Amino acid sequence: MRYDIAVIGTGPAGLSAAVTATVRNKKVLLLGSADLSGKVQKAHEIRNYLGLPAVSGAELAAAFQRHLDSMGIVITEKRINAVYSMGDYFVLQSGDEMLEAAAVILATGVVQEKPLPGEEELLGRGVSYCATCDAPLYRGKTAAVIGYSPREEAEAAFLSEVCDTVLYFPAYPDETHLPDGVRVIRERVLSLADRDGKRLVKTAENAYTVDGVFVLREAVAPGQLVPGLETDGSHVAVNRRMEASIPGVFACGDIAGLPYQYIKAAGEGNVAALSAVSYLDRIKRDQAQKKGDNDHGQENQRATV
Amino acid sequence: MRYDIAVIGTGPAGLSAAVTATVRNKKVLLLGSADLSGKVQKAHEIRNYLGLPAVSGAELAAAFQRHLDSMGIVITEKRINAVYSMGDYFVLQSGDEMLEAAAVILATGVVQEKPLPGEEELLGRGVSYCATCDAPLYRGKTAAVIGYSPREEAEAAFLSEVCDTVLYFPAYPDETHLPDGVRVIRERVLSLADRDGKRLVKTAENAYTVDGVFVLREAVAPGQLVPGLETDGSHVAVNRRMEASIPGVFACGDIAGLPYQYIKAAGEGNVAALSAVSYLDRIKRDQAQKKGDNDHGQENQRATV
Repeated sequence: MRYDIAVIGTGPAGLSAAVTATVRNKKVLLLGSADLSGKVQKAHEIRNYLGLPAVSGAELAAAFQRHLDSMGIVITEKRINAVYSMGDYFVLQSGDEMLEAAAVILATGVVQEKPLPGEEELLGRGVSYCATCDAPLYRGKTAAVIGYSPREEAEAAFLSEVCDTVLYFPAYPDETHLPDGVRVIRERVLSLADRDGKRLVKTAENAYTVDGVFVLREAVAPGQLVPGLETDGSHVAVNRRMEASIPGVFACGDIAGLPYQYIKAAGEGNVAALSAVSYLDRIKRDQAQKKGDNDHGQENQRATV
Repeated sequence: MRYDIAVIGTGPAGLSAAVTATVRNKKVLLLGSADLSGKVQKAHEIRNYLGLPAVSGAELAAAFQRHLDSMGIVITEKRINAVYSMGDYFVLQSGDEMLEAAAVILATGVVQEKPLPGEEELLGRGVSYCATCDAPLYRGKTAAVIGYSPREEAEAAFLSEVCDTVLYFPAYPDETHLPDGVRVIRERVLSLADRDGKRLVKTAENAYTVDGVFVLREAVAPGQLVPGLETDGSHVAVNRRMEASIPGVFACGDIAGLPYQYIKAAGEGNVAALSAVSYLDRIKRDQAQKKGDNDHGQENQRATV
């Protein structure tokens, strides 16, 4: 099954994009977290979301959820590791599952954390962002997981079924809920390094030698998510139609640039959805045109036979 | 009294800009109609304003009004005829009254109607957009008023106090409420022309000879409103920060381009307000810097005396 539009992210930008694409009768795959955006949920008070005066983050999220429910829009809880352009459609890799959509809207927010020293250098050489993808590489070995939100604990639990030892470094204060096989280390990770074919996780207090390191953040840098995509610092480069550098890819919300504001994100989600709808209409027309040309060509061939 | 930010227009873009500028503690002058946007009020159902599922236009307008009320934001019902840049502030002309603001946000919507044939050619030569400004020119003479909304009737009534004869051509179906001195003509105006030093108003049925013609629309074309402003068709040319070509002028909502959508307009209003706040901070810093340089220069002078 190929979706018309995949929307990655369930903050205001992604939700607004999904709502408008649904109004326009497109088959939408909305990917993200069932509890919407952690950032929205935790906001103390939002005074400038026009139409909803002085709401708490939880109230705003509840209003968004009611909107989704009223339109029958459901959230698919899958983490997307990469998006590949296949010409006239896209493959979205989620672990070892492949999803397909004709257009993609990126609304994943911004990566607030800077990469750890050594992280980018070791990417693909012992450092990974995807437990589901790379777990088999560390079967029976030792893996470290640096988790930036409680949501990453499921990944660590999965790794513990495959690896011999899993060290989990939570980068958040919440209590962890992990199987016994996972060793939780409450030390701040300062850097990653390579030593004698092994990886070194350095904290303020210690250095841990492991075979592989999984760095799991809420949002992935856009250039990592969509290989080849033009970026502008930590943002996706877009025009005012929210079109990114790859035809069929759109971005909205924080990932598309400052200011980081809910109503701005919702507005951009609307624009991204309408631009995606125009894009789909255009490729449909082009395909019909091509088909027409081919049919016509065949007729001509018949005529000359 | 000079305002920090003048917001012209009370659709979703203007209201959102006023809300965010107020949150940022700026002195805001919000200019428009007390019944907000006629377009919003009349909308049948809006399904994609995220957070307010399936609202009628009247419900959406009521939610907006509650937001304004909760923050003590009031609407000043003045029609702005022109905005002039004075270097580090702007003068907004409203009839014969002049208002001042350090930055201006244009959120007046788009002019849906095309100019009448002959209208642009005769502008300033018998055709005017401002009854308050130009009424004295037609004292004791005959004026035609082409009104595109019932709100224009007040202008025609005012003209009837000054002119000898006022012909009123309503370009809407509603019943008119005008003083006896005004002659209402329910004929569609097709074009304007010049003949023997008089103006000719041509309808499908007749041609009327008058001294002056007032063409009164809800929205004025942006290039007419702000002389020298770079436009893009019927829109103001802006970048993604909603900055127009004149420093200190910002635009948002329909006037800033397609798509014409409420949530997009509200998002852009937020961005325009934050860009205006940054602009004000910048000119304040520049002025302080300049003052510092001057003080320093005076000190040096004293030292050398």
